[in-house]
Amino acid sequence: MSAAEYREEPGQPLPPWKETMIVGKPLPRVDGYERVSGAAVFPSDTSLPAMLYGAVLRCPHAHARVKGIDTRAAEKMPGVRAVITGETPGAGVDWAYTTPVATVKTKLFDPHCRHEGEEVAAVAAETPYQAGDAVKEIKVEYEVLPFVVDPKKALEAQAPALYEGGNRVGKTQIYERGDVARGFAEADVVLEETYHTACELHTPIESHGCVARWDGPRLTVWEPTQGVFEVQAGIAQVLGLPLANVRVIGHYVGGAFGSRLTAGKYDIIAALLARKTGRPVKLFLTREETYLCVGNRPPDEMKLKAGVKKDGTLTALEYRALGTGGAYPADGTSSVDWLVRDLYTCLNVRTETTDVYINAGPARPFRAPGHPQCAWALEQMMDALAEAIGMDPVELRLKNVPSFSQARKNIPYTTTGLRQCLEEGAHAFGWKEARQKAAESRGSGHICRGVGMAASLWVVGGGRPPVTVVVKLFADGSANLNMGASDIGTGTKTVMAMVVAEELGIPLENIQIENADTGTTQFTTRSGGSKTVPSESPAVRAAAFSVKQQLLAMAGKDLKVSPEELEFKGGSVEVKGNPRKEIKISNLTELKERGVVLGVGIRGPNPAGKWVTPFSAQFCEVEVNMKTGEVKVVRFLGTNDSGRVMNRMTFECQVYGGITMGIGLAMTEARILDGNQTGKMVNRNWHDYKLPTALDVPADMVSLPIEMDDPWCNSAGAKGLGEPATIPTAAALANAVYNATGVRMTSTPMSPLQLCQAFASRGKGG
Amino acid sequence: MSAAEYREEPGQPLPPWKETMIVGKPLPRVDGYERVSGAAVFPSDTSLPAMLYGAVLRCPHAHARVKGIDTRAAEKMPGVRAVITGETPGAGVDWAYTTPVATVKTKLFDPHCRHEGEEVAAVAAETPYQAGDAVKEIKVEYEVLPFVVDPKKALEAQAPALYEGGNRVGKTQIYERGDVARGFAEADVVLEETYHTACELHTPIESHGCVARWDGPRLTVWEPTQGVFEVQAGIAQVLGLPLANVRVIGHYVGGAFGSRLTAGKYDIIAALLARKTGRPVKLFLTREETYLCVGNRPPDEMKLKAGVKKDGTLTALEYRALGTGGAYPADGTSSVDWLVRDLYTCLNVRTETTDVYINAGPARPFRAPGHPQCAWALEQMMDALAEAIGMDPVELRLKNVPSFSQARKNIPYTTTGLRQCLEEGAHAFGWKEARQKAAESRGSGHICRGVGMAASLWVVGGGRPPVTVVVKLFADGSANLNMGASDIGTGTKTVMAMVVAEELGIPLENIQIENADTGTTQFTTRSGGSKTVPSESPAVRAAAFSVKQQLLAMAGKDLKVSPEELEFKGGSVEVKGNPRKEIKISNLTELKERGVVLGVGIRGPNPAGKWVTPFSAQFCEVEVNMKTGEVKVVRFLGTNDSGRVMNRMTFECQVYGGITMGIGLAMTEARILDGNQTGKMVNRNWHDYKLPTALDVPADMVSLPIEMDDPWCNSAGAKGLGEPATIPTAAALANAVYNATGVRMTSTPMSPLQLCQAFASRGKGG
Repeated sequence: MSAAEYREEPGQPLPPWKETMIVGKPLPRVDGYERVSGAAVFPSDTSLPAMLYGAVLRCPHAHARVKGIDTRAAEKMPGVRAVITGETPGAGVDWAYTTPVATVKTKLFDPHCRHEGEEVAAVAAETPYQAGDAVKEIKVEYEVLPFVVDPKKALEAQAPALYEGGNRVGKTQIYERGDVARGFAEADVVLEETYHTACELHTPIESHGCVARWDGPRLTVWEPTQGVFEVQAGIAQVLGLPLANVRVIGHYVGGAFGSRLTAGKYDIIAALLARKTGRPVKLFLTREETYLCVGNRPPDEMKLKAGVKKDGTLTALEYRALGTGGAYPADGTSSVDWLVRDLYTCLNVRTETTDVYINAGPARPFRAPGHPQCAWALEQMMDALAEAIGMDPVELRLKNVPSFSQARKNIPYTTTGLRQCLEEGAHAFGWKEARQKAAESRGSGHICRGVGMAASLWVVGGGRPPVTVVVKLFADGSANLNMGASDIGTGTKTVMAMVVAEELGIPLENIQIENADTGTTQFTTRSGGSKTVPSESPAVRAAAFSVKQQLLAMAGKDLKVSPEELEFKGGSVEVKGNPRKEIKISNLTELKERGVVLGVGIRGPNPAGKWVTPFSAQFCEVEVNMKTGEVKVVRFLGTNDSGRVMNRMTFECQVYGGITMGIGLAMTEARILDGNQTGKMVNRNWHDYKLPTALDVPADMVSLPIEMDDPWCNSAGAKGLGEPATIPTAAALANAVYNATGVRMTSTPMSPLQLCQAFASRGKGG
Repeated sequence: MSAAEYREEPGQPLPPWKETMIVGKPLPRVDGYERVSGAAVFPSDTSLPAMLYGAVLRCPHAHARVKGIDTRAAEKMPGVRAVITGETPGAGVDWAYTTPVATVKTKLFDPHCRHEGEEVAAVAAETPYQAGDAVKEIKVEYEVLPFVVDPKKALEAQAPALYEGGNRVGKTQIYERGDVARGFAEADVVLEETYHTACELHTPIESHGCVARWDGPRLTVWEPTQGVFEVQAGIAQVLGLPLANVRVIGHYVGGAFGSRLTAGKYDIIAALLARKTGRPVKLFLTREETYLCVGNRPPDEMKLKAGVKKDGTLTALEYRALGTGGAYPADGTSSVDWLVRDLYTCLNVRTETTDVYINAGPARPFRAPGHPQCAWALEQMMDALAEAIGMDPVELRLKNVPSFSQARKNIPYTTTGLRQCLEEGAHAFGWKEARQKAAESRGSGHICRGVGMAASLWVVGGGRPPVTVVVKLFADGSANLNMGASDIGTGTKTVMAMVVAEELGIPLENIQIENADTGTTQFTTRSGGSKTVPSESPAVRAAAFSVKQQLLAMAGKDLKVSPEELEFKGGSVEVKGNPRKEIKISNLTELKERGVVLGVGIRGPNPAGKWVTPFSAQFCEVEVNMKTGEVKVVRFLGTNDSGRVMNRMTFECQVYGGITMGIGLAMTEARILDGNQTGKMVNRNWHDYKLPTALDVPADMVSLPIEMDDPWCNSAGAKGLGEPATIPTAAALANAVYNATGVRMTSTPMSPLQLCQAFASRGKGG
């Protein structure tokens, strides 16, 4: 094997850790000081000499065609340095949306505006206020077109069409195994229900946008993104530049949640304005603009029919979902059926998923794309089935725990911790006692206590290549970790530094990290899909391992023994069994001569013949005020089989964050479009669009990791956590609300108004 | 050999290029646009949010002791955020000067101030003006001590002593071979002369200093430096930090010339001020401060005695030099005897070099440390010897061209282009005709024409390890070159990009460079000593070669042939002899899968049993006004055996710059210290310290490279150019002046005043 490189070959990853000294500990973030003190320079903090500010003119209509633009008045506004439209030389560039089922080719500034907020023109000026003022002076003649913002109406024949071919996004996708008709015939109980989830808006604290600067032919973009290399590729493709000439830097990211996986139109607009003015341009969107244009978890309608035998055997699942990605194709953001296919053992499954276009901003993946919605349906249905056959909901799930992926030709999972999540979670939560106590407490007032739970899996775990990582060890034994991955707030930098510290036995504070810069750091794919830690850790291990091998060889020369006789012991290399014969890393002759040792680590492929999947279950307790419809979330417990816990503190924080986000889906968040008169969004701010706050989140949150030995998964043993931590939350809450009230809430959000209406229509309430 | 690495092993460098497609062409700089447009962000352009400005209080006396400091008034000045002295907690750090012959341990703020400008205290304030004003309000009680600023006087017994042990810097160094007494006895002619060179001040356009910022425990320093890793090591050592926690960045350097090889006190002061205030601090010195404190080529006194036979055989050379590094040890900055030892064949050589301390700012290496001074003596002596034996000066030198290093136990040179430099230079210049014509023209007026020449070698060429370089090839075939080397204005980035382009057959504009950043780029030693190109090029080649090997392997898989059957052809890989069977780099399956290919290149050792040395000769013509003492430099021709010409344009520019700098030494530049009353510098600005300007430089400058095949040197074939381009200039001018006037100018600068005085004392002049 190479001196400078360790590449995990198929079937030959580094051996899994047996015992760890650092990995697994609850350690605070390596960049905690910067984050807390404000010293961390987020991309939106970027301030460059001579920097201009960009602003975008956006279509105010849900559906319209631009007939003419007059920029003359805007160009004369104070401080204005450039105004661009689709007619400006160089700005008439293409913009495409491509997914496996549909491709739409459009323009950066397309005259056909298919949603409110679509980009029409842009300005660069000396101050953000001047830019904003100038945008208002651009005169646009619109032909206002009829709109449709309801997915069901969009399917109707007479609906306004967004495209010549109509509003369907490709064909309805069908998955089928077994025979659902036979399955329903065999069932003792068959239930059917229609579930809805509202559209949620991505709300990372740092808004979307970038700073763009040209240095001759090279463009540098500072952007909070989940994947600097994806943004690089996107910009290079649109502007026709070599990849090396597009440098994307995103050292910090103020939240992402799936909305920052690719280049945005703002990147291209900022680059064009910077090129036209010869000055750097900062273009960050307002909150209103991000709500309209750069991300949402679109609404879903899910019909689910399920059959079960009295003994708990699931006999059939039939699922028909109608989703929408908004005005453009947005793969995997809605109508995702994966939990129905694979969470529980069931021989007969049929799913039908349909996507339509509506006149609304394009969706982007939103922490576990499609999964919380599908869980909202499936996990409420499981609750209802359990009640119908008189079985405990946990028992019903345990009865149907799979050990292989049915939807993937029965490929076995490396580990299936679902059983442990359910059993250990129920035990730790005191499930039976809590259900019993809640039942006993009801009827004694208008505050009803309820207990609910739900489970989930995440469609793909264990990470994957490609990842390259470099570790550079200095002559004093301190080290630099160089990786392309973004730390989207989840602690990636901290965890990876711990991996280096573990492998090389050096203190965490002697490791510095360079990351998320296409110019100076190594290639990886985006931080998303719960794959960052399981993808990166093995590559980091491999890079550190390569450094270690080189240091052992150097020590062998100095100590005049074969490297095989040597071992690492905290900053020194010593002869096995003879700790007196040792040499400090900083004293190695060749290290002093070379100045540094460089180790390149290359992530190996995933195990053949096995599938890696994280599982989770959550348990919660609520108090529902039957007079006001208010729900108080009293406590939550999340169990996660995500493989090895790399850092117990960041692991816990991920779980708490996931639960918090799930509370938002369940209780408060819903985009509202005016379906009658305008098609416009009516709650485009933090007053009208309700995010859960500290008061909505229980103080009593517990994370219970299920750590199972998983030698197959990857050489770090981590399976992925970010998404499984939020998938079951909303369904668990709905089940708890049902448990408390006897009212099945099939639509999000379970707001006081919705609850009161539901109570009223079913004769319940105070 | 490794997939990801190519390491040149001893005796096994990459084979030398036969023909090149890109290397050798006259190509403009890759960062030319940024440099010319002002877009290039030099370290002194760095502007960070919340940045403070530092200023330093400096000792106004040539020699003094600080008895007390009162900072109270300064602390109350507007905008002041911190005042530090040696008494401030954390600021009492050590500062040491270490050379092979002497070590002085002192303090960052040392109460014993041994030269004017020594650091006493510092301030950080909101604006540079507030910082400067506050510094003036610091009250210091000094005990003024007697001073000495003349090296000869410093050796006298009653001289004021800078140190307890006296003013000698270690012992007088003696080199001896053969028997000089016998040599002089064998000579037909023996001449003896004493030569002086004045002190020159480093005058890079960008002044010295840095911006320092702490992010938690990590310090980042933006500094124009020749070696980011040396500055990193220096700061880490003084502040007791792990190397990984000190990041030094110097993307651009506004001139260096040897004055930026190590960390300066300004680095530590800025870091301490930044730590104390919790804000970034910018501390760049004024021109006056740089002149006093951070660099000079110190004065030299050189006695040279030489014996020659009538046939031109040199029989003996005896050299006694007295130099000074100023108030502190400054290795290799003065009294360098190397040309006497090794430029010409001579069996009997003795040199004696003595260094003393004086009360003046410490010297730093200055483009060819010691060499232009030594050439000033030796090459004027050669001129005088030639005249004495009636031989042409070029002939005398040709007679004594060596082919091995006499001072290094007769180790052979890889190539000795001195003969070609002399012969081809004389031919191209029209030496004989010009001498003849000048001789004929004299006597016909007060404008006397003269022609002179001189030769040189540079003490060490061919570069050396350690150097690590990384080349990262993106999926579209564009590439990133990652190297630690500073581009000090010589075009290093351009030349190295050309090396990558040459090896990989990709266009120069598809290569981007990251350099000079200890955090993100690879280890190398400083850009100095004419070693940058010969040190870096082989490592860059090796990195690109490693990329190429990997791409060939990938292409082999795709084309289903062995990699040995494949070859590179401009962005594609094709089967040898079958150009139709080819694949574009951007179509390689594995490259698409991996996203990038990383190649690590490690510089191999220099050839055993051979020595690499660059040679040069320069020819010039002057017109001397015998009435005014003005010298007009009419034309210059520089020949250089520096091995392969990597980029003909940057090569030429180096030669022109070297000649310009030599004109400064010869004609205009001289630091003047008040030796009588104060010991202070009296010409600390650009009005009184004369730099040559465009009007002092001839329009007719020619660079004539001597390219000899040098398979031994290194795999790039380059030997080093920066310093050989300036070493002979001043001596050639003095010889031309002598040729024109018959007056031998033994001291620099040959100013009109000095010339007139010399004419007067010898009965010459108009």
